[in-house]
Amino acid sequence: MSSVDESASPDAEPDGAPLTIAQIADHAGVSIATVSKVVNGRDNVAPETRELVEDLIRRYGYRRRKRPVKAARLVEVVFHELRGLYGIEIINGVEQVARDHRLGVVVSELEGRHTPGRSWVEDVLARRPTGVVAVFTELTAEQREQLRSRDIPLVLLDPAGDPDPEAAAVGANNWNGGLAATRHLLGLGHRRIAAITGPERVLSARARLDGYRAAMDLAGASVDPALVRIGDYQIADGRHHTRELLRLSDPPTAIVAGNDGEALGVYQAAAEAGLRIPEDLSVVGYDDLPMAEWNIPPLTTVRQPLREMAAAATDMLLALAGGEPLPRRRLELATELIVRGSTAPPDPGGTAQ
Amino acid sequence: MSSVDESASPDAEPDGAPLTIAQIADHAGVSIATVSKVVNGRDNVAPETRELVEDLIRRYGYRRRKRPVKAARLVEVVFHELRGLYGIEIINGVEQVARDHRLGVVVSELEGRHTPGRSWVEDVLARRPTGVVAVFTELTAEQREQLRSRDIPLVLLDPAGDPDPEAAAVGANNWNGGLAATRHLLGLGHRRIAAITGPERVLSARARLDGYRAAMDLAGASVDPALVRIGDYQIADGRHHTRELLRLSDPPTAIVAGNDGEALGVYQAAAEAGLRIPEDLSVVGYDDLPMAEWNIPPLTTVRQPLREMAAAATDMLLALAGGEPLPRRRLELATELIVRGSTAPPDPGGTAQ
Repeated sequence: MSSVDESASPDAEPDGAPLTIAQIADHAGVSIATVSKVVNGRDNVAPETRELVEDLIRRYGYRRRKRPVKAARLVEVVFHELRGLYGIEIINGVEQVARDHRLGVVVSELEGRHTPGRSWVEDVLARRPTGVVAVFTELTAEQREQLRSRDIPLVLLDPAGDPDPEAAAVGANNWNGGLAATRHLLGLGHRRIAAITGPERVLSARARLDGYRAAMDLAGASVDPALVRIGDYQIADGRHHTRELLRLSDPPTAIVAGNDGEALGVYQAAAEAGLRIPEDLSVVGYDDLPMAEWNIPPLTTVRQPLREMAAAATDMLLALAGGEPLPRRRLELATELIVRGSTAPPDPGGTAQ
Repeated sequence: MSSVDESASPDAEPDGAPLTIAQIADHAGVSIATVSKVVNGRDNVAPETRELVEDLIRRYGYRRRKRPVKAARLVEVVFHELRGLYGIEIINGVEQVARDHRLGVVVSELEGRHTPGRSWVEDVLARRPTGVVAVFTELTAEQREQLRSRDIPLVLLDPAGDPDPEAAAVGANNWNGGLAATRHLLGLGHRRIAAITGPERVLSARARLDGYRAAMDLAGASVDPALVRIGDYQIADGRHHTRELLRLSDPPTAIVAGNDGEALGVYQAAAEAGLRIPEDLSVVGYDDLPMAEWNIPPLTTVRQPLREMAAAATDMLLALAGGEPLPRRRLELATELIVRGSTAPPDPGGTAQ
């Protein structure tokens, strides 16, 4: 403790100024070079040492050198999973804004995990990007703090779980979307309307389902629990659940799918069962990915403006990086029902089978 | 010219050692800082000055300082256009290798241009990546030289045009793929087989068409020029050309599409015309994107291993960056016919109409 001014020590100032790199080194009993490695996300540091240093930064904060390290001209986009056209729409939206600012876009995916692992965070800290857009992904409190303490702003896009109320986030109005999809079918005369949802723990899926329930309730139509199926936003789920729904003694005449992928699975199961869309079975998707209009028949779906959402998230990120105040930390873009050929009045002749 | 050793000047050594940054500055009559800006891709340099400096580097080469600048832990992937699942497959393949090496993947797209503009190159030089994978994209000779002189290796993936024979490149055997698709249809008994291709100037499209012609020729089937349609690898082209083909007095009973997107356009036009696939019209795609098996009926297609190609290109890039010799500069992965539900023997009853 020889070279450190005791008055700046954490014990002396429990809610005082953040620590300098030298103070952290001193408190942790390691070299300044080691603290620097942790701060900059390099990987040749023993796990216990890293934890000790991170803990000090978390508790007391970290004070940069006078001349702050310049952020790299990079924006990070992290996906829990990079599959299908959803990802392409989002990369395009980020690119659009990044290109105007001559920023490179670093894309990474977490191989299906919703929370990044340690190596992802370390690599991001080492790259010192201008900011991070996390897509359908949750960062742990510790990871958010690691970014915050290095002044790397974070914006959540289409948040998967219950996001930190402090976090900057861009989403779409999922509840309204679920409501509009279901009301469209009710308006055509359907009453036996099934819902295939996204995962239960994903807020967007819950909001869409609640919109469905609200529409049914407001129309005086009862929701048969057998018609609500929890899916996983995958094509194969749409097919699987539709097969089961069509086996019911009183099958649905219409299905609200959790996304366009699940809707494609509905088409598949309907074709297997010899049912025509929309004559025998109506279906509404969600997202309006570029493929929706190429379905045969073209898919009626709720348009979620993914490109615009991604561009808005990137704009928000650049404002945060520039130290500008955000007019609002949560942005919800509107969804819109796009009516195409997959919905029609129910067959008056009776059940779908 | 005061501070420069005349014996090291370009005139004295026309094929001698490359110039140092100081020598370039001296020859161009600008400051060392200005040359450094050009070398590092920064943008606040007058265009004429940039051209002068680039020209000197091109003519005489550029000698780095003794301690070479360390490349950033980034791999660049540049697409001429980022649309559809083709891009997702390639990003995933690059990611897979990059993740193992803890490298970030920077994705950029050229908004449909096949040749990058100046700002793209400058940004790449400024980022100093470990290497560049150019997807279905041509760099100009000058751009290739700009990368080469900064020791940034380049690998072409699915080269669009006639690639520099020196260039490292990964492709698939397109001729074999075109041959296999056509032979499959001939084997089912088809003779009126149409081909919808990719753009004429794109080598992969030409190779696939030549494979088609070879298969027809070897089977003694004549190629009717009215059945060969030049497309643009887009869904809408597949639909447009199929509409025209079905209007012929002697329409085809089968179509070899340039890619899976065009094949989807064939499905669309067939549905409009009230034709069933495969009973009334057979179709073979190309790529085997994840969507192919979800077409109704599932698409018979030529599998191009895009993920593996992208991983191989990234491996090649890392070998080049590490100064390792490449066993070969051109790698062609095999294509494979995947037979699904979109092909069947022609209707014995007569023409498709």
